[in-house]
Amino acid sequence: MKNLTFLFLLVFSISFSQTSEEQQLKKFYDTSLLNGQSYDWLDYLSNRIGSRLSGSVGAELAVKYTKEELDKLGLDKVWLQPVMVPKWVRGAKEYAYIKSSTGNTNLPVCALGGSVATPALGITAEVIEVKNFEELKELGEAKIKGKIVFYNRPMQADLIQTFNAYGGCVDQRVHGAKEAVKYGAVAVLVRSMNLRLDDLPHTGTMSYDDLPDSEKIPAAAISTNAAELLSTMVKLTPDLKVHFKQSCENKGEVQSYNVIGEIKGSEKPDEIMVVGGHLDSWDLGDGSHDDGAGVVQSMEVLRLMKETGYKPKHTVRVVLFMNEENGLRGGLKYADVAKNKKEKHLFALESDAGGFSPRGFSFDCTDEQFETIANWSILFKPYLIHYFEKGGSGADVGPLKADGVILAGLRPDSQRYFDYHHAANDRFDAVNKRELELGAATMASLLYLIDQNF
Amino acid sequence: MKNLTFLFLLVFSISFSQTSEEQQLKKFYDTSLLNGQSYDWLDYLSNRIGSRLSGSVGAELAVKYTKEELDKLGLDKVWLQPVMVPKWVRGAKEYAYIKSSTGNTNLPVCALGGSVATPALGITAEVIEVKNFEELKELGEAKIKGKIVFYNRPMQADLIQTFNAYGGCVDQRVHGAKEAVKYGAVAVLVRSMNLRLDDLPHTGTMSYDDLPDSEKIPAAAISTNAAELLSTMVKLTPDLKVHFKQSCENKGEVQSYNVIGEIKGSEKPDEIMVVGGHLDSWDLGDGSHDDGAGVVQSMEVLRLMKETGYKPKHTVRVVLFMNEENGLRGGLKYADVAKNKKEKHLFALESDAGGFSPRGFSFDCTDEQFETIANWSILFKPYLIHYFEKGGSGADVGPLKADGVILAGLRPDSQRYFDYHHAANDRFDAVNKRELELGAATMASLLYLIDQNF
Repeated sequence: MKNLTFLFLLVFSISFSQTSEEQQLKKFYDTSLLNGQSYDWLDYLSNRIGSRLSGSVGAELAVKYTKEELDKLGLDKVWLQPVMVPKWVRGAKEYAYIKSSTGNTNLPVCALGGSVATPALGITAEVIEVKNFEELKELGEAKIKGKIVFYNRPMQADLIQTFNAYGGCVDQRVHGAKEAVKYGAVAVLVRSMNLRLDDLPHTGTMSYDDLPDSEKIPAAAISTNAAELLSTMVKLTPDLKVHFKQSCENKGEVQSYNVIGEIKGSEKPDEIMVVGGHLDSWDLGDGSHDDGAGVVQSMEVLRLMKETGYKPKHTVRVVLFMNEENGLRGGLKYADVAKNKKEKHLFALESDAGGFSPRGFSFDCTDEQFETIANWSILFKPYLIHYFEKGGSGADVGPLKADGVILAGLRPDSQRYFDYHHAANDRFDAVNKRELELGAATMASLLYLIDQNF
Repeated sequence: MKNLTFLFLLVFSISFSQTSEEQQLKKFYDTSLLNGQSYDWLDYLSNRIGSRLSGSVGAELAVKYTKEELDKLGLDKVWLQPVMVPKWVRGAKEYAYIKSSTGNTNLPVCALGGSVATPALGITAEVIEVKNFEELKELGEAKIKGKIVFYNRPMQADLIQTFNAYGGCVDQRVHGAKEAVKYGAVAVLVRSMNLRLDDLPHTGTMSYDDLPDSEKIPAAAISTNAAELLSTMVKLTPDLKVHFKQSCENKGEVQSYNVIGEIKGSEKPDEIMVVGGHLDSWDLGDGSHDDGAGVVQSMEVLRLMKETGYKPKHTVRVVLFMNEENGLRGGLKYADVAKNKKEKHLFALESDAGGFSPRGFSFDCTDEQFETIANWSILFKPYLIHYFEKGGSGADVGPLKADGVILAGLRPDSQRYFDYHHAANDRFDAVNKRELELGAATMASLLYLIDQNF
């Protein structure tokens, strides 16, 4: 009889707790969809402020604006965390064209972030196309010296998750210049990281590593259509020349900030759950998907908790990281300060994969932690959230990795992401209000469940 | 020992069959993404032919084009199935405005399909706003006679599946005129079935049922922004008047066709599996999502089978239905002919929910059938296809419902669908190539598994 009572109480308490969890998730989704703030915040960030490259006026305005908006939410604490960031400027709009006897053919182009400029009169040189660094090595100095190396390995269309296709190509953009210098190249042009054929060049960070200034060569991206065209023409006319010019410049370091706000935990205030995105963006569009969406969704998570009257047991902290795109200084600084202050982080979630329809999360955690989390998938089923897998989290929360810390990344539908990523069309009108709001509610739900169960 | 051998063989055969199924799915996805035809077909349908309202030149060109393209695939048989369809034409572009002492305010408007025209000089009348038919009844003739009834119940934003929000509102559009006539209304304006606030009116079918011609009143949709504006202004100035004019016309019936192609089954040629979409569209955009996507995906299913060398056991038939939008004549005709010919249908799948990222399928079948199907979800997991639920299928395949027939509908992500549905922005550039191709491969995979397991 005692056992039966116990069993009854157990079943009752499980079903009760299940019900209250279901109810809280529904409150988050309803509030986000019916009375959300994320889309209005994004409208301001994208349309009133615009692009937010580290060290730019836009980035500083975004710090000021998001700080003010967090102040309005009635959080327990809102502050700026100083961080020095690299300042790189694009300068005058780049141009590139194929020089040919029958007339010049335009190639839509943009400098890669961190690249040096061409000489003032531009560079004119023959082009040699390669698909990867092995090919580059085989060709060697004899074939490469004095030429522009053209990296043209496309993203793999048969990979279902487009981030895997990106991961398989981005070495060309990041390390292409440094590798080509070894064989005497004068510049590199990289096929844009874009699964679509279109006319937009996509920028992104590149690195010279420890190459001395005197050996640095300019690096730029051309659109996928331009890459197809150049590839065809260089096969027909191997000695054709490309002329290109860019005026970008590294301006050293400037002061900037991570923007942080928190709700103090009611039971375990010293254990911190972070939710965040990065406040900086590239300069070509307005950074609505990358990562305006992640910024406003993260802010919305705390607002949804306040709005639905949920008081977290652990401290919930929104962190809007500066400089993810070309330095990760914000993420590194946040983790560094946390370490120095001996702060204990339980959980950190980043949204930095676009404001598209959410599918779930990837987790960087132990098998035991993952087992607990994966059991919640049934709670997310009504919201069509199904993806719970171990895998990466997010660049900015990565430095928090330590024993026991659960890291996670929101995983929205990725099919359209690289149509916009780092390009001029990453703009407000490419974000769907409902998709953005569903993402915010999904994030709030995960934080809530972590808060309840850990 | 005998038992062990049996067990070994069983395990071996299960794992082998699993593997060959996995392999075939991968072939479908790889072929669709790397070497697909669906996007090019859609390009032609949308950009070379354009809108395809039943009875229009576009519809007839689409019949001709898709027949020719199916002919090229080397199917066992391709034919046209004659069907009479209603012809309705929009005529001159509609206009509507609020007449006010301080100037007129434009209301973006479009006639609903099947509506009669206004008188040549248009209609000018006071407006009465209602949210539903109960409110209409309560107001009664005293408040409604001589006025324009304005239906303004918005789609419910907190419903995760937008088709449910559509289902909860569309009675206003379909039956609004017939209901308002009862109380002496002179016309109806309906808030567009759109979850977004924007300036595009969304058309769609309406019905007078058996109302005599003399009692029919004009019905039109206004954009969601216009609905918000009109609602505000009519509260401020209850006696304001709206003027609107439309010149649409019902032109009786004309000859058209379903387009059909089939691969004869190698083992059960008399059992038929249908895959289809509808060839007609509304006239405002080019019908890329509704339902150009479903048409080209269905064609692609048969092409993927040919291309990957898969020979189905059952007969696989692609049916491009005519007149789903304003009559369903194609779907009814197909089922009627099948019945008369005593054809046995095993399965019918429709894609008519947009060319967005596929999430899964809904099924109209027995519990036993569903149990078998739901077990395949593990095969779809690598493709992020997770939605397998009982529920509706598709309007065109619905008439095939009978004992034993499995009906299904592709369920793409629905969040953006009603941004485009029946409006001028349902255009080619709103369809993402990869999302379209993923849908086609997902459909081919389901047909293949049905073919193997039933």
